[in-house]
Amino acid sequence: MFFEGSEKKIEIIVTPEAPSLRLLGRPFWESMVSKANAEILSSVSNDFCDAYLLSESSLFVWDDHFLMLTCGTTTLVHAATHFIDTVGVEAIAFASYQRKNEYLAHLQASSFADDLQLLRKKISGKAYRIGHLDSHHHYIFYTDKPYQAEATDITNELLMYHISGEAAQYLASSGQTIEEVRKRLCLSQILGDFAIDDFLFEPFGYSVNGIRGKEYFTIHVTPQEDTSYVSFETNLDLTQHGEDVFATLLQALAPGCWDIIGFNTTPNAQDFPSHVRLGNCQMWMEQGYDLHFSHYQRCEHQHLQPTEL
Amino acid sequence: MFFEGSEKKIEIIVTPEAPSLRLLGRPFWESMVSKANAEILSSVSNDFCDAYLLSESSLFVWDDHFLMLTCGTTTLVHAATHFIDTVGVEAIAFASYQRKNEYLAHLQASSFADDLQLLRKKISGKAYRIGHLDSHHHYIFYTDKPYQAEATDITNELLMYHISGEAAQYLASSGQTIEEVRKRLCLSQILGDFAIDDFLFEPFGYSVNGIRGKEYFTIHVTPQEDTSYVSFETNLDLTQHGEDVFATLLQALAPGCWDIIGFNTTPNAQDFPSHVRLGNCQMWMEQGYDLHFSHYQRCEHQHLQPTEL
Repeated sequence: MFFEGSEKKIEIIVTPEAPSLRLLGRPFWESMVSKANAEILSSVSNDFCDAYLLSESSLFVWDDHFLMLTCGTTTLVHAATHFIDTVGVEAIAFASYQRKNEYLAHLQASSFADDLQLLRKKISGKAYRIGHLDSHHHYIFYTDKPYQAEATDITNELLMYHISGEAAQYLASSGQTIEEVRKRLCLSQILGDFAIDDFLFEPFGYSVNGIRGKEYFTIHVTPQEDTSYVSFETNLDLTQHGEDVFATLLQALAPGCWDIIGFNTTPNAQDFPSHVRLGNCQMWMEQGYDLHFSHYQRCEHQHLQPTEL
Repeated sequence: MFFEGSEKKIEIIVTPEAPSLRLLGRPFWESMVSKANAEILSSVSNDFCDAYLLSESSLFVWDDHFLMLTCGTTTLVHAATHFIDTVGVEAIAFASYQRKNEYLAHLQASSFADDLQLLRKKISGKAYRIGHLDSHHHYIFYTDKPYQAEATDITNELLMYHISGEAAQYLASSGQTIEEVRKRLCLSQILGDFAIDDFLFEPFGYSVNGIRGKEYFTIHVTPQEDTSYVSFETNLDLTQHGEDVFATLLQALAPGCWDIIGFNTTPNAQDFPSHVRLGNCQMWMEQGYDLHFSHYQRCEHQHLQPTEL
């Protein structure tokens, strides 16, 4: 029953001279997704963005950049190298490749070190691990060519592990309805005016993409007991948003621990459930991204039950 | 430079009808050690016990039981199955097999699940994971035949990660002397009247076995920066010992986090460095072992530095 919910992620910004990524067309993006061993399930579009829901996570394509997240044992790095081969290194203004904290790294098709070797054959860049190997940690590779990000180029990531309580029970139960899942995730309350595209997996598991103008959010739910994982990501400036999105999700899903990764934003932990912050790091990327990582554990999470094998 | 210090461990008690394990002779124990891909470096003996220092950790042999610890990428499970094949299942009163928290599980020759499959082909038993997969955790397999341990059959294990401060710097430096290493580990202060056998590895790394009557202790130091690990284990009843051994080692080595595993004993954390207890579990084993696991993080350990890759 184990499924690795935690994602690998690529984000690539192309130069102003490069052709529109949206005009590359669906067959191109289908081939990108297949390189990672995933499939497109459905999509939603507006004037700025095509958002694809995948069998394993999500793909968002704008004219000048794209973002692809895949979970499970997908091989996202092959999509990254395929993209670089197709458009050429000179068309790339900035690229980053991340791997989030995994439950069972030894079941993955490759390690971050393996991925790094493949990436560095195609494009030069820096790579870091943030966090100790024996606790939650995060890997990032990013290109080192000159580029200047806007200070408003924000990303917020909330990665929740070991969800608990009523919503968690519902999300792991059979016979769910998509309306009830949306309600448990407080979607209409926190992000009501986004156009959404969502999918309920069998026997459980849920993914949703939402877009509003150039803004996106995505949530992926892997509710398996003992190794549950729910990720939320958006480019919204949450400090300017009416609702406290992180606190609402944390209260609804009651994770045992969670990570926050922010680019050009730091979390407001004031209304988080009672917790200990086990690790935190701020890293300046010279292209104009201030990377923040924090790992939290809920205060009640220390009482362990043996798991019979 | 990476070396996995964390150990796998087997402990097997034979029935009163079985021949003395010490009389099996050194060639037998050399073959056991070679099954795990390790070697005997030296030994120390008394009337009760032969203690072997290995290229990767330690082996202690008494007449009616033995204990073998190996680190790195050794294949200890093969020594376990070889022993069962040699003496026969009926000669085994009680056996346990443990794997401690690993930094890089994907570099190991096998997973605990793989080891479990091999063990269960030879002997029946129960297996548990204690601790979440995304935090420190500990695996144990133990046989389920009738057996009754004495309440005085105690084991204390202290597993320290990310050591820091002056002693840690010294242990990772070149040109160490064995006398100075013993001093940094406070050996004469905390366990002065044990007969010891120790070894300083090149370029660094240190192992020591100590015996006193039927009692033993062992310490293994893997000082590599970023993935350092120091383990201490003994069958002494530390609650009846004059010195607070755990607190002294924790103060000397200032680990960022540490685990304590106890059989029929619980730690006294009163003089530990300022810490948060991130996980704890008590598990009753019907053969008369009360297993305790605790995972601690030092309060100052949360400020992370990115590690360049």
